[in-house]
Amino acid sequence: MTKEEFLQKIKEIEKVDEEAKKASLAHQLTLAKPPWSLGGLEDITVRLAGIKGSNDYQVNKCMLFVFASDNGVCCEGVSSCPQSITWSQTINLTLKKTGAATLCAYFGDDILVTDVGVIGNTDNGKVVQKKIRESTSNIKIGPAMTEEECIKALSIGFETALKYKDTHDLFGIGEMGIGNTTTSSAVLSVLTSLPVEQVTGKGAGLVEEAYLNKINVIKEAISVNKPNQLDPIDVLQKVGGFDLAAMTGAYLGCAYAKRPVVIDGLISVVAALTAFRLCENAAGYFFPSHASYEIGYRKAIEELHLTPFLNLGMRLGEGSGCPLAFEIIKASIAIRDKMATFDEASINDDYLEEIRIGDKFKV
Amino acid sequence: MTKEEFLQKIKEIEKVDEEAKKASLAHQLTLAKPPWSLGGLEDITVRLAGIKGSNDYQVNKCMLFVFASDNGVCCEGVSSCPQSITWSQTINLTLKKTGAATLCAYFGDDILVTDVGVIGNTDNGKVVQKKIRESTSNIKIGPAMTEEECIKALSIGFETALKYKDTHDLFGIGEMGIGNTTTSSAVLSVLTSLPVEQVTGKGAGLVEEAYLNKINVIKEAISVNKPNQLDPIDVLQKVGGFDLAAMTGAYLGCAYAKRPVVIDGLISVVAALTAFRLCENAAGYFFPSHASYEIGYRKAIEELHLTPFLNLGMRLGEGSGCPLAFEIIKASIAIRDKMATFDEASINDDYLEEIRIGDKFKV
Repeated sequence: MTKEEFLQKIKEIEKVDEEAKKASLAHQLTLAKPPWSLGGLEDITVRLAGIKGSNDYQVNKCMLFVFASDNGVCCEGVSSCPQSITWSQTINLTLKKTGAATLCAYFGDDILVTDVGVIGNTDNGKVVQKKIRESTSNIKIGPAMTEEECIKALSIGFETALKYKDTHDLFGIGEMGIGNTTTSSAVLSVLTSLPVEQVTGKGAGLVEEAYLNKINVIKEAISVNKPNQLDPIDVLQKVGGFDLAAMTGAYLGCAYAKRPVVIDGLISVVAALTAFRLCENAAGYFFPSHASYEIGYRKAIEELHLTPFLNLGMRLGEGSGCPLAFEIIKASIAIRDKMATFDEASINDDYLEEIRIGDKFKV
Repeated sequence: MTKEEFLQKIKEIEKVDEEAKKASLAHQLTLAKPPWSLGGLEDITVRLAGIKGSNDYQVNKCMLFVFASDNGVCCEGVSSCPQSITWSQTINLTLKKTGAATLCAYFGDDILVTDVGVIGNTDNGKVVQKKIRESTSNIKIGPAMTEEECIKALSIGFETALKYKDTHDLFGIGEMGIGNTTTSSAVLSVLTSLPVEQVTGKGAGLVEEAYLNKINVIKEAISVNKPNQLDPIDVLQKVGGFDLAAMTGAYLGCAYAKRPVVIDGLISVVAALTAFRLCENAAGYFFPSHASYEIGYRKAIEELHLTPFLNLGMRLGEGSGCPLAFEIIKASIAIRDKMATFDEASINDDYLEEIRIGDKFKV
């Protein structure tokens, strides 16, 4: 897609249906429980009704999209992991060996790993080959990528979502890319105007000195590139990454296809926020999973007006929070469809009779 | 059991094995992820290792125990629901119609409903018949029950847990009893010395006037009965309920049997706290589920040094948070057993060769 085609597509993303949400809410009040006593579980199906336009959205198959790429800023010592981990874990994700892959396998969810910029060959027959270039450039000294590359990454994500819209009902978006908490914090700081310190954490486990270096690198990257806060594509291109851009595109693709999509941790929520800034309507399709331990996460999820379901202090990435959220969303559908209404819950005379005529009659 | 026999049994509850926890923690550090990046999921299996004494606790079958009883204090207008709901929902729990029963059915968990004091005949062939008496007495004017009745309720819960210790691996504890947020707040206020206002919520949905009445009823109940804070059985007997006492016994039974047990919302956590006050060792077997919307919950879960996994604003009771927590606990076991170690995650030369010799060779 060209930039114009992409921008045109995302303009077509529809608002969720507020009338259908109201009807779903009214149905919740007929279920045999105190109003709103299932809280977030009720809210989930109300939002699914908004997405489908009717109160019967079903989830049979779930898929986690993982976008993998290296980030040029890695050479600045912003990560506690060697860069080659991007490559090996990209492979391992397809071998059910990583945290997110283990959870997907356990819960029976599919996982699709797309290489958008990993250094090294990932073509093991399972990783989808969409490499734009081996690693972005170092954002400390210039833009991460060209505008053309950014549109390419956005398009890859968008089209990935569209490709699976009819085979799967619920999506999650994760990543693999050493250095991508640095790019995410940079994007988040620019989009929210928050000081770098307030949106930057220690990633996978930086010591204090390296953490201060990470903050300085992000500040320098923003100062050198001068991304335009009002133009999310400019921000992604200058201080983001191929992973972040593809994820942003995937969120927009899910929204375009009217499919609910689950956010994981920091990097995932920054991509979701970027998608929201590109198209406000898209946020109606986003669901949270867990409250990441990374400090920037909270700022970003608040901007999306979402409350995370889970509070497990996780900070692994890869989309590891998504399979757990899939189960919560499926549980909310079970409540909607299987719980008795007040009418159904009132024990009728026949049933009373049945108990009374039993030989264990006690009242 | 007599009181002496019961107190002797709970003295035998063993501390969890701290050495096994350390070994489990060391194993977590060998898995291919940044240390502690799966947060609570890692902590769960560390605690399961403490329970079993080795790092291989498995969860195949889960069971939710629901204890049902009426509470005499209901006549004081402390609940927004009619008292007869206890009876109908006790029946409905066995018909897979309620919130908790729907979730158990969806996730394939068993549910065992025990009548310890419901007004009316619940003997539909499914509800376990252990009625002590039809409803406790009104705590506003005197003790909820006699000491003998309290020991009976504790024993029922304790023996219920023991009965299923070999057929199930993970338990949850819920309740059905209109008026039991009132008794729970009373017990919690006494056990923690916190003012009644700080531990009392609006239950299923009281209006302001009824809420103030609920607070006054609890204050009166405490002032009339003068429960002894240092004697949890005295507190249960005077301002508790059959449901709360049976639940307390069930927590202790799970701990005695060395089985992990999941806490639901306010009433469930108050029973867990009471169990902890009866036997400190028991707390090592307790797991949280969700942060209840009821204000007293937070105080009680903090006393147990537990952090709830889920934040869904739920306040239904019945044990409805437990089936969701069961999935999280099972997921943590999948991580422990299936994720690659650092050794297994390093892509070896054979695998590299395989990629390189492929006709899609790119690096």
